[in-house]
Amino acid sequence: MKHIYAQIERNKAWAIETLKKYIALESVSARRKCLPETAGFLRDTFSRLKINASIHKAGIAPVFCAEHLVKKPAKTLLFYNHYDVQPEDPVGEWFSPPFKLTERNGLLFGRGTADNKGNLIARLWALKSYLDLGIAPPVNLKFVVEGEEESGSESFPAFVKKHRSTLLKADCCIWESGSKDEKGRPQITLGAKGIIDLEISIECAKADMHSSNGVIAPNPAWRLAWALASLKGSDENILIDGFYDDIVRPCDEEIAAIRKIPFNEKERRKKAGIKEFLLGLTGRDLVERYYFEPALNINGLTSGYQGEGHKTVLPHKASAKLDFRLVPEQDPVKIISRLKKHFIAKGFPDVKINFAHGYSAAMTPVTDPFVKTVSDACREVYRKEPVINPMMAASTPMYTLSEYLPIASIGAGHADSNIHGPNESIIIKDFLESAKVIANIMERLI
Amino acid sequence: MKHIYAQIERNKAWAIETLKKYIALESVSARRKCLPETAGFLRDTFSRLKINASIHKAGIAPVFCAEHLVKKPAKTLLFYNHYDVQPEDPVGEWFSPPFKLTERNGLLFGRGTADNKGNLIARLWALKSYLDLGIAPPVNLKFVVEGEEESGSESFPAFVKKHRSTLLKADCCIWESGSKDEKGRPQITLGAKGIIDLEISIECAKADMHSSNGVIAPNPAWRLAWALASLKGSDENILIDGFYDDIVRPCDEEIAAIRKIPFNEKERRKKAGIKEFLLGLTGRDLVERYYFEPALNINGLTSGYQGEGHKTVLPHKASAKLDFRLVPEQDPVKIISRLKKHFIAKGFPDVKINFAHGYSAAMTPVTDPFVKTVSDACREVYRKEPVINPMMAASTPMYTLSEYLPIASIGAGHADSNIHGPNESIIIKDFLESAKVIANIMERLI
Repeated sequence: MKHIYAQIERNKAWAIETLKKYIALESVSARRKCLPETAGFLRDTFSRLKINASIHKAGIAPVFCAEHLVKKPAKTLLFYNHYDVQPEDPVGEWFSPPFKLTERNGLLFGRGTADNKGNLIARLWALKSYLDLGIAPPVNLKFVVEGEEESGSESFPAFVKKHRSTLLKADCCIWESGSKDEKGRPQITLGAKGIIDLEISIECAKADMHSSNGVIAPNPAWRLAWALASLKGSDENILIDGFYDDIVRPCDEEIAAIRKIPFNEKERRKKAGIKEFLLGLTGRDLVERYYFEPALNINGLTSGYQGEGHKTVLPHKASAKLDFRLVPEQDPVKIISRLKKHFIAKGFPDVKINFAHGYSAAMTPVTDPFVKTVSDACREVYRKEPVINPMMAASTPMYTLSEYLPIASIGAGHADSNIHGPNESIIIKDFLESAKVIANIMERLI
Repeated sequence: MKHIYAQIERNKAWAIETLKKYIALESVSARRKCLPETAGFLRDTFSRLKINASIHKAGIAPVFCAEHLVKKPAKTLLFYNHYDVQPEDPVGEWFSPPFKLTERNGLLFGRGTADNKGNLIARLWALKSYLDLGIAPPVNLKFVVEGEEESGSESFPAFVKKHRSTLLKADCCIWESGSKDEKGRPQITLGAKGIIDLEISIECAKADMHSSNGVIAPNPAWRLAWALASLKGSDENILIDGFYDDIVRPCDEEIAAIRKIPFNEKERRKKAGIKEFLLGLTGRDLVERYYFEPALNINGLTSGYQGEGHKTVLPHKASAKLDFRLVPEQDPVKIISRLKKHFIAKGFPDVKINFAHGYSAAMTPVTDPFVKTVSDACREVYRKEPVINPMMAASTPMYTLSEYLPIASIGAGHADSNIHGPNESIIIKDFLESAKVIANIMERLI
């Protein structure tokens, strides 16, 4: 591998220069800005290296695909990335312009360095290094780079469905991004919870009334409180019939893996300003709940008068924004249908459900051989024991790909990369090593 | 009585002229506008008739008092009024300037004509007519006119407490205002529900978090939903221990009286746009509930994200604005203390109660002789059977006076007086007759 590593090191200036151009494209999908231009930049960059590239119309932003196939029979490694980024707000808190890649103290600052333009360039950097040496890579490589991840990846599932046995056919996948933990250990993530976003609302009258009518006229705010209380008890048990039925609980290896993930309870409580965790949980029970338990969250409540002081009003409408966090094998479609039945059965046929979007959880088994491959590569390059996270508490639509191939998420980030915030950064050494890890994984996949 | 009625008719121009000057004073208490000036106008007007008048400092507006005592032993009739008015909004919908008394088609338009500057002038008009004829009125008359009723009468209870055995000592009281119903029958109101305004809030963390934490961190919006559901069931039963204990239920005569009040269910449902009344009630049950049942209303709910679309946020705070509507003998102080105990007993010690203000219900028994006196006077002057309402569904602090003397609320309004709205008005004939009713009551009190 030494000659490959040496070539990767020689290509460092190219990688930083290419990332600089990539970061300069202000591809904020929330603003629908600069998206086809950024896909075009990727096509040009890949084409210049004589890698097959194509652009596909999809949703609010085209999907960029590329592939480099070797002539002999070989495994295929797929890379998933996205070329869109979060808005740069709050702009005033950046020490250098967010879309100008800026080097300071061995770090590269810029929107998208860690999430996740840097990662795509690191992967291309590994491939380019093989090509520069005139060596055929040990595996086929495929790239899929969408442009609406930061806006919900709405059209990506359909794109994958259409192309999974052709353009996106592969044996395994390196997902988006990742970072080192506070102790500098590489983190490998194998899954993410699913999600359903929805709003429930109840309308009882055509306008607000004087609250002296509250004794004889229905109050949607009361009905909302009762409807919510019918969904989940104060013991945190979700009361929708069949909600827990399809759940596949983690295996012993997965539980063992999450117990190795550092979880500083005191620090987390202090940062959030909370007295204790839900249900008074601590230790193993808390960590298991965090990673493997589904949730039903209220994100917002709205009804009636919300100003200063008091207004004796009977609201005509009340609503709540909710999200479900799903674990493997819960099906969003089934849960929405169960939720509808629940409201009817519990005496709330007047609850209107406005379903926004949703997707399933993803989880590649920790016992999958690909996980060992990625772990071994990380261990060798970083010289630290990787931390394996079978499941993120947050949600991302990894299920699109994890449904048909094993996935592992790794990346060039560090513990303070501050993705989505100001002064997003990667450490140059991590950037370089993340290209080497890709090469190392490729060699192990033979 | 004929000579008194004749003199009242001769004084009509004086009454309209005096009302015109009174309406011209823009005494909107919400704007703290013109309040001492209006009290001064009353002092001058009463003094000019050689009636003892005084102004007393209180809260945001002085209280005006006056009395005319006769030399022989006699009963004392107290009039309660307020000289402040509601804001004139929406100004654009007035057909004539709100503070310029304007006659059109036998009506007088202007802010305060019905609520309730016209009524005070009608009462003074009756007294002036006795004085003009050189006849001593049959009873002692006292006037108390506050200037902050439309802003909550915050300082009035203390004022009454201080003066009830001296300045405000009386045998009976004619309250504020009233109107004829749609069939032109005079309405006599004997009471009003009490009220408690409060806000409950729960704060679980120092800032909003990402909702992926909702599986392990407390969510105040959930706690609010559960706390609210613990207060009242969907059967509308209020679950606070002892809430119903002190209630004195209406007597048969009071129930009989409210059954005579017209209550057009279909029209009310249509106007509000509601399918059915609470608990599917209709007929007698509905009317009894409307007038005699206490209530706990949610006026508003606030938590977390309320904008367009979705935000997967775990709110750090949730709050609800509530009002209780109280019936006779429920004590607001006791109820607040029971509410505090309730939250502790039900596992919500974290609910913070922000109590705004409150007062008891008022109800003069329908069997009180004063009610017969007022009814007989109305029947004789208006030649229509009066409608007696033992209890308003709305709240007004009549309890301040009803605690120590019988009260009846009558006035010069008509069914379309539109108090608090644009084009507030009284019919000139009603104005004249309301002065005659006062004289008639005085004669009956001997």
